[in-house]
Amino acid sequence: MLLRSGSRFCSACGTPLTRRVPTGDLRERDCCDACGAIHYVNPRPVVGTIAVWDEQVLLCRRAIEPRHGFWTLPAGFMEVGESTLEGALRETQEEAGAHVEMGPLFSVFDVPHVEQVHIFFRARLLDLNFAPGPESLDVQLFTEHTIPWDDLAFGTVAAALRLYFSDRARAVFGTHHQTLFPPATST
Amino acid sequence: MLLRSGSRFCSACGTPLTRRVPTGDLRERDCCDACGAIHYVNPRPVVGTIAVWDEQVLLCRRAIEPRHGFWTLPAGFMEVGESTLEGALRETQEEAGAHVEMGPLFSVFDVPHVEQVHIFFRARLLDLNFAPGPESLDVQLFTEHTIPWDDLAFGTVAAALRLYFSDRARAVFGTHHQTLFPPATST
Repeated sequence: MLLRSGSRFCSACGTPLTRRVPTGDLRERDCCDACGAIHYVNPRPVVGTIAVWDEQVLLCRRAIEPRHGFWTLPAGFMEVGESTLEGALRETQEEAGAHVEMGPLFSVFDVPHVEQVHIFFRARLLDLNFAPGPESLDVQLFTEHTIPWDDLAFGTVAAALRLYFSDRARAVFGTHHQTLFPPATST
Repeated sequence: MLLRSGSRFCSACGTPLTRRVPTGDLRERDCCDACGAIHYVNPRPVVGTIAVWDEQVLLCRRAIEPRHGFWTLPAGFMEVGESTLEGALRETQEEAGAHVEMGPLFSVFDVPHVEQVHIFFRARLLDLNFAPGPESLDVQLFTEHTIPWDDLAFGTVAAALRLYFSDRARAVFGTHHQTLFPPATST
């Protein structure tokens, strides 16, 4: 399992760090024996939208790694000071240049092997004036049957889209939680 | 708004950091001009449970700051390598010594002023052999009417409990999303 590697130097005082279990803790942390700082590392929230126009869903083709050239829902790392909903709206604006009305929370996906939690909201496109931002090569609308299923960037994008179309077919939208594991080919 | 302060030294190489907008970015980050590292800071997920025994909900009285002596749902920072559900289970075991069967995702609360996302799952106590862990002074079961509403540690705990009892009264449990803001007295 790929976990983010520990830091080498204390970000508070610049002293080389020691990897040990702090007093009262149960896990190894990056500890500074000079200033006493303990540098915790936590999973990061990724936030995005399933933005729709009638029967179609908005996807962005990635202009950045990882998964350059593959299609994704507009999403990205949540920033400090914003809510998940604000972050999802911001990413939709930044990556797809899209104007949306935000809807309810749709899914929470745990992706422990990359230390992320992916949170998607439903959203409704207000117009068709979208355009790729700096991190996108292209932005397009797709129906369920034109979605480039084999060229989606991430497992959470495929999972969100499958759940979305499944819910839509039943005309009942839920809020979903799943844990996603690495592809079987990845060892 | 209290945002986590930037780091002073590069955790990769120990060089003093510069606060600036990196090329291609839209926000100021802690940047290392020596090794090129950019140190992003993201909100942190907090995970916990609403663990019940018949009509009663399990609460822990905090043995640590912040909010020492106040009552909370068992919850804590999500660790790398675990899912939100695994983290919520772990915190319930660590803080309350409780044996639970995990249930569905219940709520996602944004708490932007403390840069956190609080994620609670419903859970069912399997027995009454719970006991305070190192971070708890006491662990007790409360009915809706005995909950120490004035002595709850955090707004998200109160919000989760209110939603839980409201859903239970209707006998329909949903998955909720809310953004919580600082108390009006906090300026």
